[in-house]
Parts: sequence; structure tokens; C-alpha cells
Amino acid sequence: MATLKVPDAVPSPTQDCERLRNAVQGLGTDERAIIGILGHRNASQRRKIRETYQQLYKESLVDRLHSELSGDFRKAVILWTYDPQERDAKLANEALKSKKKGTKELQVIVEIACANSPHHLQAVRQAYCSLFDCSFEEAIASEVSLPIRKLLVGLVSSYRYDKELVDMNIASSEASKLHEAIKRKQLDHDDIVYVLSTRNMYQLRATFKCYQQKFGNPIDQDIESCGEGVLESLLRVVIWCIQSPEKHFAEVIGTSITGLGTDEDSLTRAIVTRAEIDTMKIRGEYFNIYGTNLDGAVDDDTSGDYREFLMTLLGARI
Amino acid sequence: MATLKVPDAVPSPTQDCERLRNAVQGLGTDERAIIGILGHRNASQRRKIRETYQQLYKESLVDRLHSELSGDFRKAVILWTYDPQERDAKLANEALKSKKKGTKELQVIVEIACANSPHHLQAVRQAYCSLFDCSFEEAIASEVSLPIRKLLVGLVSSYRYDKELVDMNIASSEASKLHEAIKRKQLDHDDIVYVLSTRNMYQLRATFKCYQQKFGNPIDQDIESCGEGVLESLLRVVIWCIQSPEKHFAEVIGTSITGLGTDEDSLTRAIVTRAEIDTMKIRGEYFNIYGTNLDGAVDDDTSGDYREFLMTLLGARI
Repeated sequence: MATLKVPDAVPSPTQDCERLRNAVQGLGTDERAIIGILGHRNASQRRKIRETYQQLYKESLVDRLHSELSGDFRKAVILWTYDPQERDAKLANEALKSKKKGTKELQVIVEIACANSPHHLQAVRQAYCSLFDCSFEEAIASEVSLPIRKLLVGLVSSYRYDKELVDMNIASSEASKLHEAIKRKQLDHDDIVYVLSTRNMYQLRATFKCYQQKFGNPIDQDIESCGEGVLESLLRVVIWCIQSPEKHFAEVIGTSITGLGTDEDSLTRAIVTRAEIDTMKIRGEYFNIYGTNLDGAVDDDTSGDYREFLMTLLGARI
Repeated sequence: MATLKVPDAVPSPTQDCERLRNAVQGLGTDERAIIGILGHRNASQRRKIRETYQQLYKESLVDRLHSELSGDFRKAVILWTYDPQERDAKLANEALKSKKKGTKELQVIVEIACANSPHHLQAVRQAYCSLFDCSFEEAIASEVSLPIRKLLVGLVSSYRYDKELVDMNIASSEASKLHEAIKRKQLDHDDIVYVLSTRNMYQLRATFKCYQQKFGNPIDQDIESCGEGVLESLLRVVIWCIQSPEKHFAEVIGTSITGLGTDEDSLTRAIVTRAEIDTMKIRGEYFNIYGTNLDGAVDDDTSGDYREFLMTLLGARI
């Protein structure tokens, strides 16, 4: 369940565009008006707004927002304004082009592949081709070295069955295969990549449960004990995204705001990408993990228009 | 270019359905009427006919055709009546469920992955999930053993960039990688699977050309000299489907009708799956290879309603 709040009576795209135009024209920018409009429209409504804005004013809304806004607020609003698949393709591309390619950067690719519907992943692959003149998997292969490349290419190539169908025999035999590979510290073994990138989510959850019953430890714990490299930690993100995307994103948010300073990129990504999917559940998981209120934590740790925008997406502003 | 002939003035789906209903009702079936209608409608028109027929007569058109027709004619008409993606998913499933899994059976999977648009392959994966309650790649993995499994799973998982974009440096370096693996007879090497299942078709054609320039032989010839197994011959089908789908299908048709007896399943598959894509070019390639006319050859080798139907799809009947 999402936290995005769309008003009962939504203005027409033309009305929204006229108000947006007023907000970006003349001296100064009316950031609150921009938040008030875009922060209360779903993906298809935002798409219509983008199209209508282009037709009415012969300029791209995203470009205009880019020139009017700044900092983390700008990043968040622009990511939100894109189509979800375009946004994810851009986030993935940014991760692949970054100099450092650690877990923090590459986990966005795992999230796209393992914490979304097969249909969405497919749309991201299509958007990636349109935007960057190569396939998503070619980009991964040219930017990421083995053995991580193998895992990521496998994951983004998947098109999983998306209904609840579990075969307990498969769960048991594949739990053993996973255990065998993990025991030998062969984390890029074909069996691991095949199982994690092919099976449906319900089947995989059963397999992980079976793993713990048969071998004593949760699978992510056994993976952790293999080492502290990026492959180990990305594989754990895979397990978490499959087991519970909402718990994973609660932890992404928690990690981004705890300690000194805030990791705004991660905070933005988690809230913007999930506001139409499961931020309500993320809120519950956040409370379970940290014993505090998600909204309060975000409110405390951010400021200005950026705070207003995130709080709007979290449903805490009307 | 296709050979399917759709009339300038197409009757409404309701009119088509009424004529089809007359053709299947009462004593005897009017096969020529069925051919005259369905054999002159494109995929989206056939889809509307199926939907309208279901609404009007509360029965499935495909089921009705199944009970009224028989033999190769029935098979061909029913394959043609499905949506292209549904048809390919069914053909692939049939291949995977067949007892013998040689090149003749499995090559349909290669054709789906390598002789169609990335978009169509994606639609087939989606149809496969809907029809058979598991993903296409899971079905391959459960029915096909290594090393062929690895090649086929890689191929059907691809979503290639679909525009003409060639990097000659990549062509050269990947030609060398392919040559290295072929020289060592490691035909299921990660590099081979990666290159063949990830690169766009134009890039791959450049890579194959580069291979021949650098190493003397056409790549399919070097693969042939590795052995006579199913992996070797399926890999050659991959190369052919990438280099020239129309030449490949001309050869499928040629092989199906030369010698004693006819391989109707292959003949039907080639004509039905390509009649809306490139049968015009296949005709040209057929003449180049066999020095005879494709239409004449099919006409000579088939009979009855089956012949009429194939000839209609080949554009040789009005």
C-alpha cells in the first residue's frame, strides 16, 4: 500500500500545467505550488501533465524544473516527475556510470530486478534501450566486472512468473543447491544465479525458509559469513528484496538518516520509488526495526522544500 | 515483407464471424470459407474475430475449429488463429514437452529468440507465463539438460537493443572471444552465451563478418567442425537466424519438402510464423538456394485444404 495522496477531484492536466507554469515563471519559484501539484499526482497523471506542458509551452517540464530548482529537492522532484520505468533506467545508469561501484551504488539494480513486478523490470529494460542506446545488460557487462556482472545480468534478464505457485520439492532441492554453493564460497555459481533470477518470488521465499530449516541459519547470514565483498553484500540485498521489499527499504531509509549526516540520494530513492507501491508497509517495518516513527525521523533529518516534498510523498502533508 | 493479402475493404468482425459460423455449422464444414476469411486477416483482425466470435456464440473459435477440422490443415489453421505470441509460446511448449529433444524440436526456441524482435520475444515470455504457469526459462531449465539449457535460457532472457548500432572494436574483440571458445570446443562458454544473447543483431552480424576476416572460416563452419551434437547444430541455427532469418526459413521449408515424405510440422511452422513478417524475402532466398519457385514447391508437395491454406498465406490465392 502506497502513501501517495491524490485528491478526489483531480484538476485537468491543462489546469495543473497552468499552475505549474505560474510557479516557475517570473521572479522566484513557487516551490510549494510545485510540491502541491506534482506531489499529489500518480504516474499516469504526471505523464499527462508532462505531455500537456510540452504541448502548451513548447518546452520540457523536466528541463524547466531542472533550471528552476536546485539541490536534493531538485533531484527528488525530477526523479518523481519521470515515468517510473524511465526513472529506474536513469537511476541504474547513474549507478553504472559512477566511479565507485560498491553495494550502495549497485543495489539500485538489484532493487529494480527483485523488488518490482516482472512487468516493471521489462519496462525498465525497454526504457534503458530508448534512453541509452544499448541494452541494460550490455551496460552492466561493460561497467561491472565479474563475478558481480554475472549476478546482475542474470537478475535483470529475468521475467518471473508472477503468481503464487510453490513447489516444495523444488524449494527443498534448490535450498540444498544454494547451500552447497555457499558452503564452497562459490557465490557466483550458475545454480545460485539461475535460482535467484528465474524462480517466482513465492517459490524463492519457500526455498529460503526451507534453507533455514534444513541447514540451521538464515541464508543471508550464511552468505555474510562467506566474506565482506560487494558480491556478498549484493547477494544479501537480493535475498532481502525477495523476502520483504518493504523491510529492505525501511532499512535503506534507516541507514540513510542514522548517524552523522544524511545520505540524501538513498533517502530520495527509497521514498520516490516506493511512494506509489508500498510506503505504508515500509512505515510499519520501520517502526518494527527502529521503534520510532518513519515520518518523524524523515521530518527531523531533512529540511526546507526537500523535507516538504518527501513528507508529501509519505502522505504526511495535504 | 510479408505475403499475407488482406483485402482493401475488410468486413467487420461480426460479418466475418457470421460467415465463419455458417462455415462450421450444420452438416459438413466449409473449409474453403474458413481459409477465405482467416487466411486474409492480419493478427489484430484475427484477434478481433476471436473476441467477437466468443461474444456472439459463447464458444471459443479455436475450440470450434479444433472439433470441425483435422490433420495438418487443422494444426495450421489453429496456429494461425492464435495471437503470434500465444502461438510461439505454444510451439515452444510443444517442443519442450516432446520426448525427443533434438535440433528439429528445439530450434523453434532459437527462432523465437533470434529471428524476431525483442518486443515479440518479450510478448512470448509473457504469454508463456499466462498459459503454462511458469516462466519460459523455468520450463527450459526443467526440460532441457546442460549445456543446451544454458544457451537457450540465455537466448530467451535477452532483450536486445533493436536499432542499427555497431561498434567495430567490440566486433573485433568479441570475434576473438568466440574464436577462442570455439577453438577449445567450449561451445557453452560464458562468453559465447553472453555475446549471442546480449548484443544487437547488427552488432552480431559485424562480429561474424569480423570473425571470418580474422580467422578464415565462417563461424558456423568452425562450429560445425566442433562436433555433430545438438548443441553444435543449435548454435548454427542461432548464427543463421541472426545472419538472415529469411534464409534460415527458406532452408527449413526446403528441408521439410525435399526427399521422401514431407515434414508438415516444420513446413507449417515456417509459413504460419513468417507470413506476416518476411515470406516475400523467404521466397527470394528459396529461389537462390534451390533454383526453384517456393510456391510451386509447396503446391507440389502438399494437397487438399492444407495446400490451399498454405498457398493463401503465401499470397498465391486470392
